[in-house]
Amino acid sequence: MSPHSDKIKLDRLFPAIRQYQALATQHGIDDIFQDNGGKLLQILILTGLKATRKREGNDAIDEDGNEYELKSVNALLTKSFSTHHHMNPTIIAKYRRVTWVFAIYEGIELQSIYRLTPDQLEPYFTKWENKWQESGGKDINNPKIPVSFVITHGTRLVT
Amino acid sequence: MSPHSDKIKLDRLFPAIRQYQALATQHGIDDIFQDNGGKLLQILILTGLKATRKREGNDAIDEDGNEYELKSVNALLTKSFSTHHHMNPTIIAKYRRVTWVFAIYEGIELQSIYRLTPDQLEPYFTKWENKWQESGGKDINNPKIPVSFVITHGTRLVT
Repeated sequence: MSPHSDKIKLDRLFPAIRQYQALATQHGIDDIFQDNGGKLLQILILTGLKATRKREGNDAIDEDGNEYELKSVNALLTKSFSTHHHMNPTIIAKYRRVTWVFAIYEGIELQSIYRLTPDQLEPYFTKWENKWQESGGKDINNPKIPVSFVITHGTRLVT
Repeated sequence: MSPHSDKIKLDRLFPAIRQYQALATQHGIDDIFQDNGGKLLQILILTGLKATRKREGNDAIDEDGNEYELKSVNALLTKSFSTHHHMNPTIIAKYRRVTWVFAIYEGIELQSIYRLTPDQLEPYFTKWENKWQESGGKDINNPKIPVSFVITHGTRLVT
């Protein structure tokens, strides 16, 4: 086993990667190479939000303590945002209390960020709630929010 | 919502991130920020292996077409390597046919890479096989290989 000739490029670029990770660490992100850590850093810096990083999902707060739900999508792979793998009325109640920030990526390239209020997302919350009730209380596995809905109804923030 | 003052650092570093992704793309890695993509790039370059990236796990081949199983661990978080979420005799049979490459990280910093032959790992294969048989054929959820075993029995490759 001997190194690929690209090792020279790797060695040239890695100091900047290290600096990017150092910046990420300052923003509460342990590993840029997992769970979209390197994208989350970008979203936090561009929005000025602070990560709270609870066990489930990427939550954030602004300087006034308002809570945000952060979602990102790679539009090259899928046309809708994932939500939660066990959607139920408890999660939906929490979703109704926060502002939503949706980041649209193509690969690692940020295309746009949109903000939506819970009122704007209410059609989905209502739909999921009804579905949950009608199923007799079965958690819904990751219902989606289409990118097209976010673009149509949201406020574009940056880029 | 206004950007964090670190935006200037982000803007300065991102061109290098882009180059790192471009290098990763050349090595078959679509997104450095997911599934340890940025670490896999480093492992591939340092070992000279080529990613095959099947659906399950990170497999690789060398220039003679020999197959390798790649595993990595963040030693800051855990002291053993994950294997497979549905371990059974089919997977074990495959594991017996390949060479194993184990990369030990601390955060994003590579500490060492070890190579083990299937013979060296046979104690684990036998143990998992027996456990599967004794349970009447229930897949084992992600049995682990300790970092200490890899360090003791493996051949250190680089760094």
